[in-house]
Amino acid sequence: MKRWILLLCFTPFLTSAQEKIMGFSDARAKSQLDWEKQFDAALSGKDQDTWMQFLTSRPHHAGSPQGKANADYMVNLFRFWGYQAQLEEYHVLFPTPKTRLVELLGAKPYKLKLEETSFPEDQYTGQKSEQLPPYNAYSADGDVTAQLVFVNRGVPADYEELARMGVEVKGKIVIAKYGGSWRGIKPKVAYENGAVGCLIYSDPEDDGYKRGDVYPEGAYKPGHGVQRGSVMDMPVYPGDPLTPGIGAVKEAKRLSREEAITIMKIPVLPISYEDALPLLQSLKGPVVPDAWKGALPITYHAGPSADQVHMKLEFNWDLKPLYNVIAKLPGSEYPDEWIIRGNHHDGWVNGAADPISGMVSEMDEARAIGALVKKGFKLKRTLVYCAWDGEEPALLGSVEWTEHHQEELRQKAVAYINTDGNSRGFIGAGGSHTLETFFNEVADQVMDPQTGVSIKERKYAKAMVDADPAGRSKLLGNKTIRLSALGAGSDWSGFLQFLGIPSLNLGFGGEGGGGEYHTIYDTYTHFTRFKDPGFQYGVALSKTTGRLMMRLANADVLPFEFNQFSKTIHEYAGELKTLIDQMRTNTETENKMLSENLYQLAKDPTIPYVVPGPKDLVPYLNFSNLENALVQLKNSAEEFQKSSGAALSLSPDKQKELNQLLYQIEKSLLQPEGLPRRPWYKHQIYAPGYYTGYGVKTMPGVREGIEQRNFREAQQNIEILGKTLTGYADEINKTLTLLKAKS
Amino acid sequence: MKRWILLLCFTPFLTSAQEKIMGFSDARAKSQLDWEKQFDAALSGKDQDTWMQFLTSRPHHAGSPQGKANADYMVNLFRFWGYQAQLEEYHVLFPTPKTRLVELLGAKPYKLKLEETSFPEDQYTGQKSEQLPPYNAYSADGDVTAQLVFVNRGVPADYEELARMGVEVKGKIVIAKYGGSWRGIKPKVAYENGAVGCLIYSDPEDDGYKRGDVYPEGAYKPGHGVQRGSVMDMPVYPGDPLTPGIGAVKEAKRLSREEAITIMKIPVLPISYEDALPLLQSLKGPVVPDAWKGALPITYHAGPSADQVHMKLEFNWDLKPLYNVIAKLPGSEYPDEWIIRGNHHDGWVNGAADPISGMVSEMDEARAIGALVKKGFKLKRTLVYCAWDGEEPALLGSVEWTEHHQEELRQKAVAYINTDGNSRGFIGAGGSHTLETFFNEVADQVMDPQTGVSIKERKYAKAMVDADPAGRSKLLGNKTIRLSALGAGSDWSGFLQFLGIPSLNLGFGGEGGGGEYHTIYDTYTHFTRFKDPGFQYGVALSKTTGRLMMRLANADVLPFEFNQFSKTIHEYAGELKTLIDQMRTNTETENKMLSENLYQLAKDPTIPYVVPGPKDLVPYLNFSNLENALVQLKNSAEEFQKSSGAALSLSPDKQKELNQLLYQIEKSLLQPEGLPRRPWYKHQIYAPGYYTGYGVKTMPGVREGIEQRNFREAQQNIEILGKTLTGYADEINKTLTLLKAKS
Repeated sequence: MKRWILLLCFTPFLTSAQEKIMGFSDARAKSQLDWEKQFDAALSGKDQDTWMQFLTSRPHHAGSPQGKANADYMVNLFRFWGYQAQLEEYHVLFPTPKTRLVELLGAKPYKLKLEETSFPEDQYTGQKSEQLPPYNAYSADGDVTAQLVFVNRGVPADYEELARMGVEVKGKIVIAKYGGSWRGIKPKVAYENGAVGCLIYSDPEDDGYKRGDVYPEGAYKPGHGVQRGSVMDMPVYPGDPLTPGIGAVKEAKRLSREEAITIMKIPVLPISYEDALPLLQSLKGPVVPDAWKGALPITYHAGPSADQVHMKLEFNWDLKPLYNVIAKLPGSEYPDEWIIRGNHHDGWVNGAADPISGMVSEMDEARAIGALVKKGFKLKRTLVYCAWDGEEPALLGSVEWTEHHQEELRQKAVAYINTDGNSRGFIGAGGSHTLETFFNEVADQVMDPQTGVSIKERKYAKAMVDADPAGRSKLLGNKTIRLSALGAGSDWSGFLQFLGIPSLNLGFGGEGGGGEYHTIYDTYTHFTRFKDPGFQYGVALSKTTGRLMMRLANADVLPFEFNQFSKTIHEYAGELKTLIDQMRTNTETENKMLSENLYQLAKDPTIPYVVPGPKDLVPYLNFSNLENALVQLKNSAEEFQKSSGAALSLSPDKQKELNQLLYQIEKSLLQPEGLPRRPWYKHQIYAPGYYTGYGVKTMPGVREGIEQRNFREAQQNIEILGKTLTGYADEINKTLTLLKAKS
Repeated sequence: MKRWILLLCFTPFLTSAQEKIMGFSDARAKSQLDWEKQFDAALSGKDQDTWMQFLTSRPHHAGSPQGKANADYMVNLFRFWGYQAQLEEYHVLFPTPKTRLVELLGAKPYKLKLEETSFPEDQYTGQKSEQLPPYNAYSADGDVTAQLVFVNRGVPADYEELARMGVEVKGKIVIAKYGGSWRGIKPKVAYENGAVGCLIYSDPEDDGYKRGDVYPEGAYKPGHGVQRGSVMDMPVYPGDPLTPGIGAVKEAKRLSREEAITIMKIPVLPISYEDALPLLQSLKGPVVPDAWKGALPITYHAGPSADQVHMKLEFNWDLKPLYNVIAKLPGSEYPDEWIIRGNHHDGWVNGAADPISGMVSEMDEARAIGALVKKGFKLKRTLVYCAWDGEEPALLGSVEWTEHHQEELRQKAVAYINTDGNSRGFIGAGGSHTLETFFNEVADQVMDPQTGVSIKERKYAKAMVDADPAGRSKLLGNKTIRLSALGAGSDWSGFLQFLGIPSLNLGFGGEGGGGEYHTIYDTYTHFTRFKDPGFQYGVALSKTTGRLMMRLANADVLPFEFNQFSKTIHEYAGELKTLIDQMRTNTETENKMLSENLYQLAKDPTIPYVVPGPKDLVPYLNFSNLENALVQLKNSAEEFQKSSGAALSLSPDKQKELNQLLYQIEKSLLQPEGLPRRPWYKHQIYAPGYYTGYGVKTMPGVREGIEQRNFREAQQNIEILGKTLTGYADEINKTLTLLKAKS
């Protein structure tokens, strides 16, 4: 009962229990729910298993023979299931390694192995000749020799701490731990601080023995395991570095490599914790702060090392072909309204969890819907199923496709639903907050395979159990799943942040922990032992995303809603005001502490410590335009909720008009000039952090202005944001005109 | 200026700047301050160094030849400095090891070394024949063979977690990490949970390589280092287990060993992390929670082990002689008012930091005061300087002395000032809150040797720098050092908790970190390299405690004050109410979560997890008697502050009467029946935690009743506490009668 009341507040379309669906008339809802039952019955963990065995049988990175074979395999299956499927080819800069050498010089020399051991227990780990060796794509070529410095996670705050410790980074090679930011931030910030090379290692604290038993005994990273990955400066723009903003078709006009600002300026290489150990042991200088220490059995020092490290990297800088699979099932009423679904198909090596577990779930869903259509299920709108190539290096396949088809997508794309692998556990969901209520409706109706309650109930149970007592009081009884905001990390970027297409990203996880990510150990064997034995969660994911796809495709009125968006936007704005207020107070306090010499007095005189200088005071910014916009947004969203009851009884033409307004509305959150210093990112609410990468920055123009103490820019972006949100409210008001004209 | 206002609120006696001293007339304050300058000049780090070299030249545990030699050395020095000094001898049960055997059986057998390696860099570590090997004093004899279980810190909450993990402890040998509680809690709780043996190891996370470089390169614990220490159940009663409540003189009536409830019931042995490693590696069962994991390069499992562990321990259970050094400098006006100062002289091995660094500081102070007296400095009251024997096993020397002389001490003891080692850094202070203002006055006037500001200023600087932003806002400008409450851990127990003598415990620290505690590495070499090179802080400690001693000895009106005490008591009472309110809310929430099956839904079905049963609801207790007592206390304390200006102009007889009231007042905080299940502990405000040991429990009768969900007992103890505090306020009121009679 309680839940019913709760949902009512947010969901104008859902009027009672489970025979209702947002945006469907009662009669059509009943039919849709019947088809969904048949859909569920058509899903098959066994088939997902079979497909995974093929797709992960050999290493299948972008440009590999198995990558092309996988694309062909899938395009044929999609056709077989009734889709109009084709490969779309792009030609992108994707460097692969030629020379990888790292050695510690001096009295106790050590040449790094830079290689992962194969295990007889897992046949897939032995396919040496086809594996891409451990490396970071888009590292610079380089041959450098220098002392080593340990920089913790390698984010800006770590360099501030090193400065306080009196440790010089300029001219050094840095070694950073994986984690704490997207990996590409580490060499970028290292370069900004004058380092000449960068090593990134996986500390056993994060995904090795500290977490659990290591592979093949357990799921975690063995001593020689290395995480591959891209270090392209994707927070500036993702996709092919040579063709920003346009599709990398064969004949596209390309930048030179020198003009491509997203390629790293220094050599970068990932290494294992076994290889990192002698390097870390060679470090002298101060013992690092507690938060920097990992789980290796050593005392972690900041450096520099007494001895030098020599690092030599060379790459093949060829263009490589990409093969996206694009499969369409045309809609009967609105063929030019597209509901798009995607998961990438390229891996770093055999890539079972990442990405094939999500890919086979998408395939299962597509196959089942295809079967329903053959049995007479009608789809009003067109479904577009995509399997992206080259996601791992730089979201290449999806970004080039969205750039290439940008005009068409701006017209036709209703929503994009992304997955990128899957595991056992709890549903995780991020995306456009206009879809939050819609997503919750679906999450209420999909059952968790391990417990038999809805995936929403189980998520709530976990949140309650994990919360501290204060958190529990706040959560108690509130089962709504709040969508996280999307930063970077998978194929939604082109859709959401470049084109303003409402997007969701989904996946189960939390119980399939491991250290196989981007290593040779992410195999079918590992996945079926530790991640999702029996593909129960693969099927649960198909049920979830399949419902989202089919309801979006068939709704009379598209299930967008604005109160949850408005609520979220108010929360973000509140965070910004708290952020700057706290920064102001902290700056005042710290400056007072400096003027009273407290840092000097508190420090241990036997340990080097450079007291930082005072900071500029934090001004008060004028938030009034933003605040006024928030009021308009709130009013419009509430008005929409009141009026939306009329939507289901609009004439078909008016409904079509309303739907187009609804799915186009997210685009009013874009600004054509994009974010400061990165025009590719046009969305004013969600963007990857310039210095965090994966980590999203909401209201990024303002937030990063404040965080980087560029208050002038923050003020300018408050104005832009205010204007953007006012425009957004105006777009909602257009729907009101339609809805009220009816009544 | 600000500080002046602040102090004025608390300090009726201190009316302006540094020519004033609490409890001294202006003229006498000036003279006292002159003598203090001479006192400072008479202190000598060089002499402290010389004495430490002698006192730490050989292992000097209780009952050892060097222990006796040290006592003789000190008694002679005290005599030489003008004191009436003597040895006081007691005969106590102090077990030492005969047999120590631990081995892992099975396919990969391992016999533990149980031995610490000597280093040529430190000659003292090589005195093998005289060293007590690593052991836990008051372990039971035993010969047990059983599987092993890892119990984290071995406190009750850890056993609750093991029960949730489905790991059985009954009949097993447990292995616990040092830390998180006093070590004696670990075997006690293990025994309560049915374990048959207990091993305690030092994880490198706590004082090994994770903290810093290990000895002899750095200060931290090497792989084979073992922390010795007592596991007697001192939270029940400290001192000789055979003579509770009475002095263990030769002819004392003794309990049998079987009657002595403070001796552990199972065998217990401390081991090194090198010896712990194969044992921890042998554990199967679930991976432990993150908070349990240490810094060894393994995956920590809870157990049980596949293979069994065999543990055989036998001890010599002889009575051993103890030699306390008691040195008196009689007062000229009130010879029967004693200001007592103590530090223990026994170590576990060579014991440089613990305890000799504090001992030589005390000696320097006593020597300097003796010299002043020879030059004409007059002391109104008697100074008693003590060097306790047998502190390490069980506070033996000080407890037997306070029990033996209890009648005399009840009459004469004005205050007890304890130290127990010293290091570089920041002043740490705990004790009776009636002395907080007095202590702060002294802390304002002693300069920190490394920075030249007062030790109070430097403490404030450190607190500000270490605080988070919220903490900084609260602290800003508030330099008062709040005394911590005293639990267990050193020689104040007999004075404060058994006899109600106002006590302080002081020491510098925070910059001399290391892992030498209770190992063979706590040597002169280690100390002078890492802890306090040049004994600068040894001298600073002498300056601090020396001022406290001399001002207490010479004050016209003893510098007790009640507002800080009242404020503290209000805080403690507030904590208790918050504690029970939170417990009530949490219990309700958890029971609701259980009734909704949330724990079951949230758990990973592949990992064993036993959902706990619901808990009894937490009742509302009647705090009214306590609250009324708090009002009386506050009123009386404020009234005292207003009236105390008159104290300095009372007649000598009235002053004497007032002083006696003042120093006896702490005794009204005792109840003759003591705390529940531990009558030796009579203080109703401060006690060691029954399940934490070192960790103090303030208002222990109520707090532990609540914590252990014994709400009936908690309610009874609220009444007792209310009555106690009312009685205390009545005692303050007696001083008011005196003070007002005058005006």
